[in-house]
Amino acid sequence: MTRRGAPAVPDLVGRAREGDAAAVARLITLVEDASPLLREVMAALAPHAGTAHVVGITGAPGVGKSTSTNALVAALRRAGRRVGVLAVDPSSPFSGGALLGDRVRMGDHALDPGVYIRSMSARGHLGGLAWSTPQAVRVLDAAGCDVVVVETVGVGQSEVEVAGLADTVLVLLAPGMGDGIQAAKAGILEIGDVYAVNKADRDGADRTRRELRSMLSVAERPDGAWRAPVLQTVASTGLGIDELLAEVDRHAAWLAESGELGRRRTRRARREVEAIALGALRERWGSAGAGADLDALAGRVAAGEVDPYAAADVLLEG
Amino acid sequence: MTRRGAPAVPDLVGRAREGDAAAVARLITLVEDASPLLREVMAALAPHAGTAHVVGITGAPGVGKSTSTNALVAALRRAGRRVGVLAVDPSSPFSGGALLGDRVRMGDHALDPGVYIRSMSARGHLGGLAWSTPQAVRVLDAAGCDVVVVETVGVGQSEVEVAGLADTVLVLLAPGMGDGIQAAKAGILEIGDVYAVNKADRDGADRTRRELRSMLSVAERPDGAWRAPVLQTVASTGLGIDELLAEVDRHAAWLAESGELGRRRTRRARREVEAIALGALRERWGSAGAGADLDALAGRVAAGEVDPYAAADVLLEG
Repeated sequence: MTRRGAPAVPDLVGRAREGDAAAVARLITLVEDASPLLREVMAALAPHAGTAHVVGITGAPGVGKSTSTNALVAALRRAGRRVGVLAVDPSSPFSGGALLGDRVRMGDHALDPGVYIRSMSARGHLGGLAWSTPQAVRVLDAAGCDVVVVETVGVGQSEVEVAGLADTVLVLLAPGMGDGIQAAKAGILEIGDVYAVNKADRDGADRTRRELRSMLSVAERPDGAWRAPVLQTVASTGLGIDELLAEVDRHAAWLAESGELGRRRTRRARREVEAIALGALRERWGSAGAGADLDALAGRVAAGEVDPYAAADVLLEG
Repeated sequence: MTRRGAPAVPDLVGRAREGDAAAVARLITLVEDASPLLREVMAALAPHAGTAHVVGITGAPGVGKSTSTNALVAALRRAGRRVGVLAVDPSSPFSGGALLGDRVRMGDHALDPGVYIRSMSARGHLGGLAWSTPQAVRVLDAAGCDVVVVETVGVGQSEVEVAGLADTVLVLLAPGMGDGIQAAKAGILEIGDVYAVNKADRDGADRTRRELRSMLSVAERPDGAWRAPVLQTVASTGLGIDELLAEVDRHAAWLAESGELGRRRTRRARREVEAIALGALRERWGSAGAGADLDALAGRVAAGEVDPYAAADVLLEG
């Protein structure tokens, strides 16, 4: 039995940069655990990140996100590109874990050393995804992945978050789910850079594509703006996946040319820095005795003894 | 034409406390607009709030939330209780507005002076709902509502948020939507205090109720803990609504007896104070020249010049 001490960060980072899967895994675990070592890890990774193209994949349950991710990864591998996959599970903040073994379906690539697949939980705390996912992306990026795919369960808020995380947002739909109001309600019309109607061998695929195109065309866009294409795919057979990848790549090229890439990445960094700062503040506020005790203040607010603004003032001064 | 100056807060608050609907409306608009006057408003309201029972209603689109809210309000009115309804729309942070005229369906109570109905948008900023809804609840509470119903579109994160906002969380399902995995995925098993299978005149209602009961019974609970009942309703005809209200009231009594009410309200106040403090910090961080400029920092992080932790440090010291 060997004693497992604290990992030496420079060693871990060095090995991760050489593509050592175990070192990459260890670093992402440090991210998930919000390890105190992260500060050192991120400082070491910072100069080496920024080359990977980050693709967010989202869509309602049942549209075939995992199958599509799988097919896209296969296409990327055929092109000789190294790929990282982060499957982000915005699971209940109460249970904290993945409910379904979706990852099992990614088994096609389990033995491919050019693919790194990792399931992450968002841990439920406010800003959890905003905080940890960019850091996990940075690990994969610095480890030499050409493309990092972030797959999220597309419900509500998480779609908004994936829009903040990715360079290119790929929104998946399925026939019959594309009815206008539902798409609009789900907020997907604002976030997609590329749309794919998956399961396009089913009835209604053409109609879904038509409706989506017509809804997308309503939005006014300035000259030179990106116009999100709407494709059809059958991820389970690979149909349309090469075209999908071509559109993702075309978007990547547009991002670089238009300067939007820098703006998106700055926005992403902004969210990340903010989330880290807020996390630090929360920790400070939560510790009784360390200045203002948020719980005690909250109790007084609940009792009507102090109003929430006055309480916030105490917190900020504490 | 009269010139419309800044409202005098003491006057507005006084009129709202007398149940003046226009004054209540004005105060909630101040909340929505994040008015600088809010600080004064909340200070004036603080001593008068805390008596209303706050009921959160959530569920997936299509389960009949508005109809159920409507029916519940009717039952509360029959019992002579004053009711406030906040319909919170977690709409796209990009569009910022309600997409559907759901409120139209609440028209039954539009002319009843004992009911105050208001649609609110969450405004999309992180913590928007956490920040503004408790304040709007406080307005209705101080205005003499016996019950405040907060209706949210139940998708993803917003369900978690409604759990944080309400004294009693009522989760609605519909037959066929209660299949176990979906319920678990949606995270509703952890948050409900009372469950209702609405549209219980449809096929599968018994099965949905049975499945839900069996899933709920799996969770271990300490002695004296609340066991969430699962009812059946047909909100459109009012069937089962009196029973539903009885269970909501029974939960309210349990909350008071068990001490859980105080804990929930402290937790709610905690979130609110935190959200206000974070909002203040965001504003500070966002203004160039006012110490650390988050955008400039984010740009440097995106360029790999500085790591996000170091950037957060600068922010917190700035």
